Amino acid sequence: MDAGNKTQRIAIIDLGSNTARMIVMQAVSGFSYRLIDEIREVVRLRQGMANGRLSHEAISRATFALRLFKRYCDSAGIDHIIATATSAVRDAENGEMFTSQIEQELNLPLRILDGEEEAYYGALGVLNEVPLEHGFVVDIGGGSAQITAVRHQQIKERQSVPLGALALTEQFVDSDPISEESLNQIQCHIDHHLQKIEWLEQASVHGENLMIGIGGTIRNLAKVASVKRAHPLNTLHGFQLKLTEIEDTIDALAKRPLKERQQIQGLSKDRADIILPGAMVIRAIMEKLNAESITISQNGLREGLFFEHFWEHLTYPVVTNVRRFGVLNMARNYHYQKAHSQHVRYLAGRLFNQLAPLHNFGPAERELLDASALLHDLGTIISYHDHHKHSQTLIVNSGLPGFTPREIALIALLTRYHRQGTPARREFKSILSHEDKLILLSLSAILRLAEYLERGRNGRVDDVTAVWDDETMRITLIADEYPAVEIWEAEKKAVKHVEAAYGRKVILESATAP
Amino acid sequence: MDAGNKTQRIAIIDLGSNTARMIVMQAVSGFSYRLIDEIREVVRLRQGMANGRLSHEAISRATFALRLFKRYCDSAGIDHIIATATSAVRDAENGEMFTSQIEQELNLPLRILDGEEEAYYGALGVLNEVPLEHGFVVDIGGGSAQITAVRHQQIKERQSVPLGALALTEQFVDSDPISEESLNQIQCHIDHHLQKIEWLEQASVHGENLMIGIGGTIRNLAKVASVKRAHPLNTLHGFQLKLTEIEDTIDALAKRPLKERQQIQGLSKDRADIILPGAMVIRAIMEKLNAESITISQNGLREGLFFEHFWEHLTYPVVTNVRRFGVLNMARNYHYQKAHSQHVRYLAGRLFNQLAPLHNFGPAERELLDASALLHDLGTIISYHDHHKHSQTLIVNSGLPGFTPREIALIALLTRYHRQGTPARREFKSILSHEDKLILLSLSAILRLAEYLERGRNGRVDDVTAVWDDETMRITLIADEYPAVEIWEAEKKAVKHVEAAYGRKVILESATAP
Repeated sequence: MDAGNKTQRIAIIDLGSNTARMIVMQAVSGFSYRLIDEIREVVRLRQGMANGRLSHEAISRATFALRLFKRYCDSAGIDHIIATATSAVRDAENGEMFTSQIEQELNLPLRILDGEEEAYYGALGVLNEVPLEHGFVVDIGGGSAQITAVRHQQIKERQSVPLGALALTEQFVDSDPISEESLNQIQCHIDHHLQKIEWLEQASVHGENLMIGIGGTIRNLAKVASVKRAHPLNTLHGFQLKLTEIEDTIDALAKRPLKERQQIQGLSKDRADIILPGAMVIRAIMEKLNAESITISQNGLREGLFFEHFWEHLTYPVVTNVRRFGVLNMARNYHYQKAHSQHVRYLAGRLFNQLAPLHNFGPAERELLDASALLHDLGTIISYHDHHKHSQTLIVNSGLPGFTPREIALIALLTRYHRQGTPARREFKSILSHEDKLILLSLSAILRLAEYLERGRNGRVDDVTAVWDDETMRITLIADEYPAVEIWEAEKKAVKHVEAAYGRKVILESATAP
Repeated sequence: MDAGNKTQRIAIIDLGSNTARMIVMQAVSGFSYRLIDEIREVVRLRQGMANGRLSHEAISRATFALRLFKRYCDSAGIDHIIATATSAVRDAENGEMFTSQIEQELNLPLRILDGEEEAYYGALGVLNEVPLEHGFVVDIGGGSAQITAVRHQQIKERQSVPLGALALTEQFVDSDPISEESLNQIQCHIDHHLQKIEWLEQASVHGENLMIGIGGTIRNLAKVASVKRAHPLNTLHGFQLKLTEIEDTIDALAKRPLKERQQIQGLSKDRADIILPGAMVIRAIMEKLNAESITISQNGLREGLFFEHFWEHLTYPVVTNVRRFGVLNMARNYHYQKAHSQHVRYLAGRLFNQLAPLHNFGPAERELLDASALLHDLGTIISYHDHHKHSQTLIVNSGLPGFTPREIALIALLTRYHRQGTPARREFKSILSHEDKLILLSLSAILRLAEYLERGRNGRVDDVTAVWDDETMRITLIADEYPAVEIWEAEKKAVKHVEAAYGRKVILESATAP
């Protein structure tokens, strides 16, 4: 599981206005990473901050949480700690006094991020998870909101505004349900601050421009919508939240007292009291940018800070191809059999290209086939029996950075059918079309044939060529020695699927004497 | 994943009367093993064997299959091959000629097992999967059936009889549905051969005497019953098949033509034509032994041959404690964090013993707690998020050697609730009683407390003592340094579950100055 480099455990601590969070990543720099632990503590730093200073109580809650995190890191032998504080500490007059006290007391250097840095790291997290060429990243936090404009994968503009969900709630909300008047005041306040961002005025979301959302408020709004839609994946990764869905949730929240709001399916109980102003901020930004939907990213500030460390050897800490690296990272984390998987990918790719006149698919489908070839055997980490089913489970549970839910479902199903079963859309019907079923049939036939042509797991079949007429497809295997195991297994387990998918009788032959 | 020894891949080939099978085990001798591949080929060796000789066609089918297996082993770089042949080859006049031809042609030594050896290795497979002190092992194969008597984990008697499912079908069945007359002839033949086994006459299954079944026929009968019962585990491991259920299936099979038999839920299509005589053999043996049920073992001949190799350093290749080793093998296969898991087990065990006057459970429940402590974090191999749920999935999918389905469900649920959630019997209600719910509540509270007292994963809390009165339970932690992380996390995440389970307010305190 490494590339010559050392496996490190890196803790990233983020002292937010409402919550202190720590994530622990296990990583080999530039090679692979995975989340291995997570702790959160509610600290409510803004409570009693009316006079512009962190209160004594707030300081002791924060100190307590940070001491806890630091002790965890010390005793677990964490290799590297990155600790930052955001809006509440940054806004407080005594913020720097607080951080130097923390550094002295706990031996924990705590870096205060300014608004632009906070926006930068949030966007960095996103750019390492979503293939974002051009677009906008919106992060609704507790104390502030950050908006970033991305051009050519680079962060072009960034702005922090005092529009955090918690800050707005504390400033304007004093009744339950929230009064019409409060709502108007919040809306005015939002509009006022957004108007001040000049570059936002000319911007709009259209075509290849995307809008990406991060932070708990947006994730939770997406969760509410995903429950309504019965979204079939266990991850919100790549979920597209529609403006109309946000409006529906705002309507539902605005009219109800807290107790009823807490009953809304998917809404987390400890957000029910503060989420409405946050939802209004997103709506306002989306309207300003003419965005009809916003795509969810799981990554944010903490992951951005992590990636700066993970890609330390790069001048710009963003992976060039999120999707390729995401697949590779998953394969590496699950200890894939590299040579076998790569050879299956090679043979499948050769068949895909040669059969193009029959299936008419292009680079997008080829990418799904490549990903599923690298990931097809992941499930063996659970057990050999039914490992094709386990591969599906693993992919559906983890998601795949950069891919849409539809693409994740297709990759998962391709691995599901790589060795047996009749391909069907199953539980993913709501996100897969009829054309997707055709993709599944055509590609799973190719993947299954490639898998059985690599049955001995040793690259015995060097290459493959396919020629056909209206009735017959002749597939010739090139090998040093007669590939007996491969031909026999492919004939038994794969040929009839290729025949069904491509409507021709298949003949396998070897270019080597038996 | 090793103990200083080398990881080996071992192929076990078994040329049966109906099928040639190869399994590939990855193993570190005496340390851990797992199945990593499996191939089967139908060879129908007994076809055309009327004159007592393997036919030319049968020989070429078998040679073809064995050549395939051998090529797979050579090209995959298998470290060690164990190849055997059973009843058809053993009974054939030209059996030895055939094996020496195979050895010459394929460079594959093929050992012919006599009936007693076949019985021995089948029982060896069982004894490494089921904690069988005294009892009987029944193996219904294609060509023959083996019966073994076990006393004190030792194989005391063993006998092979010509009562294989395929052999009986070929000898007596010539109509569809099977005629009343054929059924009578089969029954007579079975009774005749069983009567000849003298030691079976005095034997009976009762008390701690168990009856264990292996082989495809018995497994498939269990599958039919498990579908009817909606058995909630994905493995038949430890499934108890009742005589009444076998009788129901015999009734259903006897009266119907093949086409209808193939519709019986759970019955494999390629067994529907031969399973009835096999079912009648089991029924006859169970009636003879007064057995009301037979327990399914997944292991058989091939695994027995494997274990002889795996335990080569033991004089008798049977693990002393199947359950302990099964848990350890699973933990090792999934790369458990040894020190952390062992310390959770230690703390949980200490709490279990001290709280005994309150929960009144004994060694059986303690064993479940120990197993779940070692396995609680397995799911992290899938992902950190929801890893408690993944632990449950892994255990339910793989089963655990030596444990009953009820015990497997309890261990899986204990891991499921080791860090969050309100314990419930969930999908296992059909195999868990109300008392089991109490076990789940009491033990999951202990396991969760132990887990959070080991939150830093570094053994900070050395020991724990619990004292209580009717209202309060005082739990004192012994540690070198104040265990801040552990106390804080335990108070947030575990204490209320201990309070709910033991009906007392819980106070955590440290025997070290803060």
